[in-house]
Formats: sequence, structure tokens, C-alpha cells
Amino acid sequence: MNDRLRLVALGEQPADLILKNGKIVDVFTESVFEGDVAIVDGYIAAVGSYDNAKEIIDVQGQYIAPGLINAHCHVESSMATPEAYVKEELRWGVTTLITDPHEIANVMGTDGIHYMLQAGSHMPINYYVEAPSCVPATPFEHSGCIMHAAEMAELLSDAGVLGLGEMMNVPGVLMGDAEVMKKLKTYQEAGRVIDGHAPCVTGKQLQGYISAGIDTDHESISWDEAKEKLRSGLAVLVREGSACHNLKAIIEGAVKENAATSRMAFCTDDKHLADIKNEGTIRHSIQLASELGMKVEKAIAIGSLNAARIYGLKDLGAVATGYQADLVVFNNLEELIPSYVFHKGQDAWKLAIKETWIEPGKMLRGSVNIGGEITAASFGLEHFDADKTYSVIEMVPGEIYTERGAISGADIPSALAKNELCLIAVVERHHATGNIGLGLIRGYGIRNGAAATTVGHDSHNLLVVGTNPENMVVAVHALQMCQGGYTLVENGEVVDTLPLDICGLMSSIAGDILSEKLEKISNRAYAMGVSPWFDPFISLSFMALPVIPKLRITDIGLFDAENFKFIS
Amino acid sequence: MNDRLRLVALGEQPADLILKNGKIVDVFTESVFEGDVAIVDGYIAAVGSYDNAKEIIDVQGQYIAPGLINAHCHVESSMATPEAYVKEELRWGVTTLITDPHEIANVMGTDGIHYMLQAGSHMPINYYVEAPSCVPATPFEHSGCIMHAAEMAELLSDAGVLGLGEMMNVPGVLMGDAEVMKKLKTYQEAGRVIDGHAPCVTGKQLQGYISAGIDTDHESISWDEAKEKLRSGLAVLVREGSACHNLKAIIEGAVKENAATSRMAFCTDDKHLADIKNEGTIRHSIQLASELGMKVEKAIAIGSLNAARIYGLKDLGAVATGYQADLVVFNNLEELIPSYVFHKGQDAWKLAIKETWIEPGKMLRGSVNIGGEITAASFGLEHFDADKTYSVIEMVPGEIYTERGAISGADIPSALAKNELCLIAVVERHHATGNIGLGLIRGYGIRNGAAATTVGHDSHNLLVVGTNPENMVVAVHALQMCQGGYTLVENGEVVDTLPLDICGLMSSIAGDILSEKLEKISNRAYAMGVSPWFDPFISLSFMALPVIPKLRITDIGLFDAENFKFIS
Repeated sequence: MNDRLRLVALGEQPADLILKNGKIVDVFTESVFEGDVAIVDGYIAAVGSYDNAKEIIDVQGQYIAPGLINAHCHVESSMATPEAYVKEELRWGVTTLITDPHEIANVMGTDGIHYMLQAGSHMPINYYVEAPSCVPATPFEHSGCIMHAAEMAELLSDAGVLGLGEMMNVPGVLMGDAEVMKKLKTYQEAGRVIDGHAPCVTGKQLQGYISAGIDTDHESISWDEAKEKLRSGLAVLVREGSACHNLKAIIEGAVKENAATSRMAFCTDDKHLADIKNEGTIRHSIQLASELGMKVEKAIAIGSLNAARIYGLKDLGAVATGYQADLVVFNNLEELIPSYVFHKGQDAWKLAIKETWIEPGKMLRGSVNIGGEITAASFGLEHFDADKTYSVIEMVPGEIYTERGAISGADIPSALAKNELCLIAVVERHHATGNIGLGLIRGYGIRNGAAATTVGHDSHNLLVVGTNPENMVVAVHALQMCQGGYTLVENGEVVDTLPLDICGLMSSIAGDILSEKLEKISNRAYAMGVSPWFDPFISLSFMALPVIPKLRITDIGLFDAENFKFIS
Repeated sequence: MNDRLRLVALGEQPADLILKNGKIVDVFTESVFEGDVAIVDGYIAAVGSYDNAKEIIDVQGQYIAPGLINAHCHVESSMATPEAYVKEELRWGVTTLITDPHEIANVMGTDGIHYMLQAGSHMPINYYVEAPSCVPATPFEHSGCIMHAAEMAELLSDAGVLGLGEMMNVPGVLMGDAEVMKKLKTYQEAGRVIDGHAPCVTGKQLQGYISAGIDTDHESISWDEAKEKLRSGLAVLVREGSACHNLKAIIEGAVKENAATSRMAFCTDDKHLADIKNEGTIRHSIQLASELGMKVEKAIAIGSLNAARIYGLKDLGAVATGYQADLVVFNNLEELIPSYVFHKGQDAWKLAIKETWIEPGKMLRGSVNIGGEITAASFGLEHFDADKTYSVIEMVPGEIYTERGAISGADIPSALAKNELCLIAVVERHHATGNIGLGLIRGYGIRNGAAATTVGHDSHNLLVVGTNPENMVVAVHALQMCQGGYTLVENGEVVDTLPLDICGLMSSIAGDILSEKLEKISNRAYAMGVSPWFDPFISLSFMALPVIPKLRITDIGLFDAENFKFIS
């Protein structure tokens, strides 16, 4: 309780700042009304007709909305440092970020999480971390670190840790695995929000999964899937990222059925920095939803108040007295271009560009540690028998789930030569075990070359795809040299490399330059034939994530992600 | 976390009970779908297709909705014991009650509150108490007890105490009164919900009031008032009781403007037992809202999930896994007649009728303690000068707020004789001070008689209205004799009395008989001319409540409830 709010509200004391002549986006009734916003001590003291302030900004009829909330993301997936990432989010009006640092945790465990917390928390944004629940995501792969229930419990006391990150181990939950249950119980008893991850889980299995105390899910790809989850009590985080575009299907369904939306929020999960720079995150989701026929005020509520409520952030998400003064002023509700972004009543962008960055420390550099020598034989055709049939990962345009195809061993050489098929391999890169998982993939599209990345969800081993073993070896060596990143090889030569010096996941170069470099390497990949339906590197990095159906590859081998077993 | 939920959800263990072949009211998307509800250990394990159970009830296509929530009421206003009151609520599907026992607290302080807690908590309902914040409501009257911030803080540790009851002392909040602020701060810091009470408060004053940490309000009488409060961040509890009928105006407005409703709940505030018996409470509100064009699923969400969220009751308000198995099975969504009501998975009605009642104890009886002798001179016309002008309380049909009228002293005798005007008096009845406040009232309608009650909000002094002093004296004596209740006098004779033996507020006789007696005495009052726009006794009892505009009467005198001062 702060007496100054009351005195400013009553007009008896000057506000620190008044935003004058605004159109207030009221996320409670989902409508707009005219008014001024009086701010004191970082909080909204009042909305109405106010003049008494130390500073007045006339917003001249522009729209004053609550600061937006990205309800679920992995900052590491932007490949930028938390500082650089936050700047891009702030630029487009996101003032609250809920991030699950499970990428870095898979490489560096709690040291990685603490770096992410430290680097995000000094920025002018509400920066919350969901403690990664599944490191590694499954027992079917080798990550840099394993996080046990005991370490998860310790994280509870860290300021900035909001809840438990996405519980991807659906079979573990359904079987009542002791370690999984311990993690859930610890966070549940502490009253924290538990994020779920239940792609295509339905019926009795969905009921069983949720009954263990799961609160949210961001994996729905259709309205039917989202509706079943909503009905079952999950909050649905509608995902619109660089690789996953789920918003259209879900929002179209919700609009068509005039469904209540108070248990829906927006999130990106994984979105490239260049994409964020171009269009923002939640602001982009709001715009898409509005274009699909949703009332824009409702879409803004989904992108602010709803997320705040789902995550128990009581004083965030609305333009009303007592709420933290996190605000975005939009030029209008069609273009949604921010004129101002405030965090705790202060110009967040101005503050952000003044912030110096936190040095990640040597421990987080030099994370690529491959066992043995990688040669063409590591990926060679000698691994395939001509008289056997092999499963093929079939990429699905615009999606991260995959179908399961097949090819006879005899047809592999010609399919590779015709660029209709690629080899794909996961090279363990944390503990020099020498593990290599080798498989086949269709639909990626690259011609006469290879692409490789040390971003390989979620264990972040080195993932390489190519039209022949020779190109792949060159790619692997390039990433060994620079200690992680993205690389492209064409006809045996490296044509571009983007180093990701922090854990092989993130770059410590400035956000703008990083975006340019990312755009350049991506464009080069498209020029080499990568399908326009995929992000050349983000989509690729999901091919190693064994919790998403149907077929994946890990450092242990080709994996059936529906039945949770390797394909022999 | 309960493993059995998961095992039942997966179909691996039998449920305790399955409600088979239902239409599930989904309050998340506000729609209906077909399914079975599997219950174990008092919780919903799953919704879907289920058969494995110890007991199966085939609901044959009827509608399974969440148990309803009455978000704000004063059980004492039913004049029944908590046990009798709860039975009537259960009959119509309310499984969660949030009650503010400020009536009994005004008579007996924490002893009264503890009785209400004890008597409600053993019933098969979720019985929550909001700790009365304003006992007495204002310093402008004398109640039986004064509750200070220190006593309020002690109540925090009582199981069953949910938050702070309606903060009616708006001027105290706006002026930052130390005692008021202490109460608010104590409950705010404990993370509890703080109920507000801000009739007609608007603009800067509303902003100032809310900024002190108020969460809810149930006093809106128009959509414009409700909308301003919603926009300002308050949860609006739409009131539909015996005396106050605010639902139509608010819901019509919300429907017309297609406003989002997630911050709206339903409540009764004060509703007579007979009215509850006839039509229920929240179920009646849902029906009214539906008749006004609101989607019935949305109205049910307002009457269940929304209230649960507003009050932070995380596992109440929905038919979904992990929620407490509080359910009401309605025959259809037009008539809304409950076929079954479950609390924690058990037939609540069957449990309720088996419960014995808690004896209130002698201390709560014998509460009428009037000082000096009451004679006709106490209320006589000698109190009015012929050459002065007097303010008159003008009752407004269907409302509890009043207008302020006037009459010249010379005109009083004839107006009384013609039954166009009544005398109204508040006789202090707790500490025998001999205080009497005397005034004039128009619009009540009684002819050639008097009505009196020891229910006089909120200090519960003895309130008597009559067409001449002689009738009023007879009425006062009748209530002295029976130690509180309602009485009616016609031409100098008592024609009916309903004793309210518990604190002069509640009757310990069974609910059904009480309802009959209430109906009888009310009908008699109407026969004596009381306006059909009012409840003869409930409406009357509000004439003493100095926190509702415009004019009220207390034991100290006639009170200007807009400017918070007595009228000399």
C-alpha cells in the first residue's frame, strides 16, 4: 500500500508523470475509452482526467495499452544475449517476459540459469524464469547437464524464478515417475505455476497428465486441440514463433465459435531476433488475431491481462490504479506501432540502451567438446544396407512435428544425389563421448551441401544435415573451430558461419549486427534450396527434440517420439 | 497432488463415482460438450468417457455445471441460522458461500463471528467468511460492538476467514484514516481479497478508493457505474437480492456492449430465506441473465469460475480434472432445476439434512437492552416545530438508496393522518443509552399502524416506522418482550410478531417454518399498505445504514449520507 497513489488519484499531490489525452485500452471489459494516466512511484495512481504532474506527455489521442506479456519463450533461441533479446521485445511493447532457460540448462545446468537470470533481471522489463523441468528432455539423449529434483527445489528461492518450466516428459508424468512427481510436487506445494507441454496428447492421457497439476500448454496446433485443453482446465498459450505458426488455426476456431478467451495467452516459444525486430512478438500476435476477426481489445487482453492472471502476476497487465506502470502507447490499433514503452513508469527503451551487458564468464564459452575424429565414414553410406528399409524423418511444411516416411536402402544413394533426401546426424558435443546418431530426412531441401548447428533441441548436441558425408564433415569441423554456432557448406566449402560463442547457443555480438548476420546466413540457406516453409536453422534444430512426434534423431539414434523408443 | 486422480483419469483405477452421460458446462470456453465426470477422493479426476467406478449415476443427458458461488452475502439477513441458510443455498446448487457476518459482529463482535464460522463450517458447503471491516459502519451510530484493526488481524488466522469484508468507510479510506489503513494493510499484506462498497462513488474519488487496495464492489446499480468500476480494476459482483435488484441494468448493458465478463460475479448481498427457497440465489441470477440475452454458459461462468478466480479459490468453479467435485446437475439450461448437488463428490443435500445444528449459546440471546421507558412522547409531534422545514427520507421504488425530500412542520400532522408520511425512529438497543433518533419518511406506505425490527443495518438498533407515536410504542414494546425480531402493529394492536432470538437478527426455528412465518408477516404488511416495490422489513432495515446515499437515520439522528454529517 502506497499512500501517494491515493493522494495523486484524488488530485491532492502531483503525479510523477501523466500521459495526457490517451485512448485507454480497457482489458477488463475489452473496450476503449478516453482518459489520462497518472503515474507515481512506478505505479498507476489513477486513470481519468488529470493535470497535476511533474511531467506531462501529451499522447494526442494515441492508444494506451498495458505492457504486453510474452507468456512463454526461450530467450536462448533468439541466439542473442538476454540483454539484446530484451531490447527487441521492449521495442515492440513487451514489458513482461516469462522465459524457460532450458536450452542453456541443457548445456550448463544451474550456472547457465543463473547467467540468464542475472543478465535479464537488470534490464527494464519484468523478467521471470520458469525453472527447466526436463534437463535433459528425455533419457534418450545425452545433454551437457542433468538437473534433478533437488536442484529444482533450490531454484525456488531465487528471485525471478516464477514456476516450473514445461514438463515435456509426458510418459514420466503418466507413469508417475518418482523424480518427475517430486519436481511437480515441490512447485505445486509452493503455489507456483507449472507449465505443460503436451503436443497431440488427448483423451484419457490428457486428463491424466493435467491431473498431476499441470497448469498451461503451448503446443496446440489446431482449435480442436486447444479447445480440448481449455475444457480440461489448461491455460492455452497460443504460439506464434519463427518455426511454429499456430495462431491462425486456434484464433480462427475461437472466433468462429465465439469462445471465451480468458484462459488464453500469447507466446512465441522460439522466435528469431530478426523476426522480432521486424514485427515484434506479442504485438504481432495481436495484429494477426485482429486480422482474423477477433476484436482487437480482446486480443490485447489475451496479450496482457490474461497472461498476468494465468501466471499469478497480480499487479501486471492492465491500465488501472494499483497496477505497475508498464504501458505501451500504440499509434493506432491496426498498425500497432509503439510510440512509447514504459516500464515502472519510465521510458524503457531509453533505459535499455544505457544498460551495459553482463559478461557471461569463461565457463559458458568453449562448450563444444567432440570425442574422436569426425570423418566422412562417420556419416557414410556404409551405415545403410541396400536390402533393408529405413525410416525417414518427413518434415511437414510450416510445422515442427514430423511424419514418418520410409525408403529402401538401395534407393538412398540416388535420392541423395538428386537432392531429394538428406543425411542427418547428431554428434554429442558436451562430454566427448563420440556418440553419433545417424538418420535420413526429407523435405529440408538443401542442395549439394550441408548445414550444421550446435543449437539442437533440447540437449544441444551438434546437429548436421547434408547431401553427402563430405559436406557434413566440413560443417562439423567449422563449428568445432568456432566453438559452436551455425554453418553452411556448399560443394565442400564453408560459405558462411555464425559463431554462437555463449554455450554454442547465443552470440555476444550486438543484436542488430546479429540479426543481419542471421538474415544473411538464412538467405544463403534458402538460396541453396532450403524450403521456404522452414526456418533453415530453427526448424532444423527441432529435428533433435525427442518429445515432439513423430520421428526425431538424437545422439543415440533415430527415435520414435510417439512410442518413446528407438528405431532399430 | 493425489496419485489416485491420475490413475482414475487413465482408467487404471475405479473412480468413487462417475456421473455418466452428462452435458458438461465448460466455463472456460463457455460452451457445452458431452461427457462423463469421474470423481475420486472428493476431486474431479477426469472428464471424458469413463465407466470404471464404484458407483455410477446416469444423468441421462442432463447438464453438469460447476457448483455455484454466491460471492457476497450476509447470512444473517436471511434471518435463519447458518445451517438453515446453507440448506436453502444447497437446494439450488450453491456450493460455495462467501459471507460477511457484519450484522452479528455489530451486535456481538468476534463472539458472533465465531458462531457464524462454526455453524457454517460443519455444513457440506465451502463456507468462507470475509472479516467485517466496518463495525460499526460509521462513527455516526452506536452498535453493540466496535472492532479494531488489532481484532481484525487476529481473525486472519481463523480457518474459513478468506479476506476483508466490505470497506464501507469510503471517507475513511479517502482521508487515509489510520485505523482504516491499518485494516486494509493487514489483509493486503497477507495477500487476501479486500471487498469494497462504493455506491455511486465515481471519478477521482473512485480512483483514490481503489488505489488503497480494494478488489471488489457489489453496489453498482447501473451498467455505467459497473463499467467505470470494471475499467478501474474492481471486480464487479452483480447483486440480485430481496431488496436490491441490480442485475437487469448491469447485464443488459454488458450484453448490449458485448463486454468481457471475466471480472464479474454474482451475489445476493441480502436475500430472504423465502425468496431463496422459491428461486435460489445464483441460479436465479443466471436465469435472469440468460433471459436478458446473455449466453447461458457465460452466465454460469459468472456464477462459478469467475467468482472463484476473483477470490483466489484455485480449485473451485469448473468441471475439470483437479477441481474439487462441487457440481450441480441441472435438468436443462432454461429451467435450471437441480437434479443433484454434489459437494466434494457427495450428495450435499443428503448430508445437509443429517447435520445437527450448533447451539448459539446464551450469550447470543437476549440482546435487546433499551434504556429508559419508551412512551408516545419519545416519538411525539412535539419534536417538530410548525414553522420549520424538515428533511424527509424519500424511499425510491425498488432501490435501497433514498432521495432527500422536505416538508414544513405545519404540514406534518395532516400528512401523517392521511398516511402520506410516516415517523421513523432508531432506538439504541445494545447498551441502554436511551438514544433515540427521530425522522420522517415517505414512500413506505403503511397505513394506520407501525412496523418495527431489530434488524437495522448495520448497527442493528431497533428501527420503528409508523403513522403515529402510539402505534410505534406498541411495536417497540413487542420487540422488547421477545428480545428482538419483526413486529407489525395496526390501530394500536400487535397483529403479528416474528421473534429473532439470536442477536435479534436470526431465528433458531427451522428454515421452512421460518419462511412461512416471514411470508405471513410480509403479506400482512403489504395488506396494511406497504409499497409492493419494497420488502416490508428488509427495505426498512436499510433506512438506518448511513453509508448509502442520500438520507438515513441512526440512533443519533437524521444523517446526510452524501456529505457524511447529521442534519440539524
